[in-house]
Amino acid sequence: MSAGTAAPYEPTARTVPTRNGRRASYDRDLVHSVLDEGWVCHMGFVRDGAPVVLPTLYARVGERLYVHGSTGSRPLRGASGEQGLPVCLTVTLVDGIVLARSAFHHSVNYRSVVVHGTAFRVTDPAELAEALDALVDHSVPGRSRDCRPADAKELAATAVIRLDLREVSAKVRSGGPNDEPEDLGLPHWTGVLPVTTSYGAPVPADDLDPAVPLPDYLAAR
Amino acid sequence: MSAGTAAPYEPTARTVPTRNGRRASYDRDLVHSVLDEGWVCHMGFVRDGAPVVLPTLYARVGERLYVHGSTGSRPLRGASGEQGLPVCLTVTLVDGIVLARSAFHHSVNYRSVVVHGTAFRVTDPAELAEALDALVDHSVPGRSRDCRPADAKELAATAVIRLDLREVSAKVRSGGPNDEPEDLGLPHWTGVLPVTTSYGAPVPADDLDPAVPLPDYLAAR
Repeated sequence: MSAGTAAPYEPTARTVPTRNGRRASYDRDLVHSVLDEGWVCHMGFVRDGAPVVLPTLYARVGERLYVHGSTGSRPLRGASGEQGLPVCLTVTLVDGIVLARSAFHHSVNYRSVVVHGTAFRVTDPAELAEALDALVDHSVPGRSRDCRPADAKELAATAVIRLDLREVSAKVRSGGPNDEPEDLGLPHWTGVLPVTTSYGAPVPADDLDPAVPLPDYLAAR
Repeated sequence: MSAGTAAPYEPTARTVPTRNGRRASYDRDLVHSVLDEGWVCHMGFVRDGAPVVLPTLYARVGERLYVHGSTGSRPLRGASGEQGLPVCLTVTLVDGIVLARSAFHHSVNYRSVVVHGTAFRVTDPAELAEALDALVDHSVPGRSRDCRPADAKELAATAVIRLDLREVSAKVRSGGPNDEPEDLGLPHWTGVLPVTTSYGAPVPADDLDPAVPLPDYLAAR
């Protein structure tokens, strides 16, 4: 990958892959771009010695990721202690299915980011307010200014955890298939089936007053 | 969720959620439908006491999931022992962003499946061949019969692990926002922004003979 203008993340033992090392990158701009394009992550943690992986929303603010959930949820409670909660947070953007002439060389074009670290619960009220706005704006930029902010009761029921971007790597696969030279004459179609995430026309709620216009930040999608 | 015709999965301590329990389901047909629509999962395992979450391809064959990778990869090596590798495999399909009048009630429409269990490496040659075909066909149905199968050297470099569908749950959120009654008069647009995964026109490889036609199983996408 081309190097960004910012200093790269420092590789660590667990961010250097054992295979396909040429696909790994520590480029900060690349990492940020993947994290900013996605908005659903898969967060893993250890419970009773076993792994647990749950999908959840996240947002990036500078070098911090925020994840939120109910104060009653198990991972959020785990992150509330002084020790925090060791997590692995992974974001994957799928760009295409790579069809090679051989089954072995079938692949996927993707961009992913894996963040290792310890998550801590956000307790500072100003940081919490900023994180909640970021969580709303991450999937729908501009939305936090066009909805009712959380009241005291809702704030009390919402937990946000923070994971700093320190131990981070990206992985990217792009381009066409890498067939073996001896397979080039085989009669199979070969190439890439592009995959994209797209947004449909917004569907108004049943109880929406028809006089309320579709906001610009949605019309642009 | 409506009940399928097959017996549901048995709930266990770790498949009963601590929150949003009404969204949980053990319906076998629902679980299968989510697993069959998705083809990228996030698999979590524990390494040196810390969680690791990696995106990977998977396929379902009856009540078995298969995941493959290089024989040199860390999780695959972990699953090669007699003890197997404890994993959590999660598949998430995102259907929409739910915009409520309050920040607090923003949500996501999604269908997800979480599988807990122990993965074991597939060693039986017949099962391995079936699993490799399933892995190619899962993202592109019909493709395994239209490419060169793995040869002995490629088979030796490929590890497949199996995870049986025993401890499984699905979670589904659908429909519009659930606003507080006192918020119904607020002037904010409310509804759902649909999200879909779509496929673009297949892009032929640079070295594809133009005489090779686009196969029906791709033209139909």
